[in-house]
Amino acid sequence: MDEVRVIEVKRSIFEDNNRDADRLREELRESKTYLINLMSSPGSGKTTTLLALAKRLAGRMRLGVMEADIDSDVDARTIQEAGIPAIQIHTGGMCHLDADMTRQGLREFGTQDLDVVVLENVGNLVCPAEFDAGASVNITILSVPEGDDKPLKYPLMYETCSLLLVNKIDVAEYFDFDREKVVKFAKMRNPDIDILFVSARTGEGIDEAADWIVSHAKQWLGHE
Amino acid sequence: MDEVRVIEVKRSIFEDNNRDADRLREELRESKTYLINLMSSPGSGKTTTLLALAKRLAGRMRLGVMEADIDSDVDARTIQEAGIPAIQIHTGGMCHLDADMTRQGLREFGTQDLDVVVLENVGNLVCPAEFDAGASVNITILSVPEGDDKPLKYPLMYETCSLLLVNKIDVAEYFDFDREKVVKFAKMRNPDIDILFVSARTGEGIDEAADWIVSHAKQWLGHE
Repeated sequence: MDEVRVIEVKRSIFEDNNRDADRLREELRESKTYLINLMSSPGSGKTTTLLALAKRLAGRMRLGVMEADIDSDVDARTIQEAGIPAIQIHTGGMCHLDADMTRQGLREFGTQDLDVVVLENVGNLVCPAEFDAGASVNITILSVPEGDDKPLKYPLMYETCSLLLVNKIDVAEYFDFDREKVVKFAKMRNPDIDILFVSARTGEGIDEAADWIVSHAKQWLGHE
Repeated sequence: MDEVRVIEVKRSIFEDNNRDADRLREELRESKTYLINLMSSPGSGKTTTLLALAKRLAGRMRLGVMEADIDSDVDARTIQEAGIPAIQIHTGGMCHLDADMTRQGLREFGTQDLDVVVLENVGNLVCPAEFDAGASVNITILSVPEGDDKPLKYPLMYETCSLLLVNKIDVAEYFDFDREKVVKFAKMRNPDIDILFVSARTGEGIDEAADWIVSHAKQWLGHE
């Protein structure tokens, strides 16, 4: 088994991250890469959800994964062991990636043979939402054990995302979690957000999530 | 029911937060206040654990709670409804509290009739660990659904805390969570960290956690 490639990215030199993020989006359009910025709390199941999605995307989209963490390479190792191209990005202690850090990762990764790249951002509901990573789309995961009130406490995360995956619904009966409330609170923050209920472990709802990604990626890539 | 008092704190004017944090600790010693900086991911159960602990601390320590969030006052409301003095601190979008933001909260709260004040920091495993809030002690919660690998990914959180509460152990059988691994990984980051397994919901382990707080608070307050 190959070692995981680890890239130490440096904080952006650009003062205006928003402008640089728009520039990165143009570069992605030109290179025909659909970049998903996947954000959530620590432990909400980003990596497990990605593994489940990868099976449904196989043969439809060529997928690659960039794992961002402060330390460790456990997630990139897990993804790579499943046969999906992956690299580990270390943020040098930073709590988020900005657009140029994302660009550094993409360059080192090499995206010419990929249609969809997922950036698994640092597990954090605050800072990653504040810094536009320059992705084609932002997706967030909220897991049932975290509670249905998270959109009340972390407004920007929900405002900046196009899709909310509510994960770990297979254990919903053991937690005090109200589906209607989470929909209401998330829509309060962002009326346009799409919401899908999934379980990365049992596979429930993963087909719909994969279809969402394929149709949005095709649109971005100009295939339809 | 009284309205929850909400305080908007401002980012520190001090350049050297570490020095200011030491100064705040001196002020706390003088005013005989044991300040606990409670940190965790979003949704790991900080507020529920606090409610469970408060019952065990009643009659032993006079407790107050400062809830820090970017938005909403749901947590302060919950604590106040349980009869515990509480205020809500809004961080103005900031992902953590520094020492002077903490001091602003303490001043507005008024701590003269309290022995123990818990600062429930913003739900975030990264930034709150980087900024010394000037507390007497740092405590972190990791909930079982988040996974046993968190100390590998968020090293500083475990390095800066004296106590790790592993919460939601009542649902451990539904998750792939290894107690021995979490102990090994946490001790790897910080050999001196104490670790208690608790369930805020069932009350398991909460007595031990309350005893830990009382004995450490008494030592700090010079009662023994």
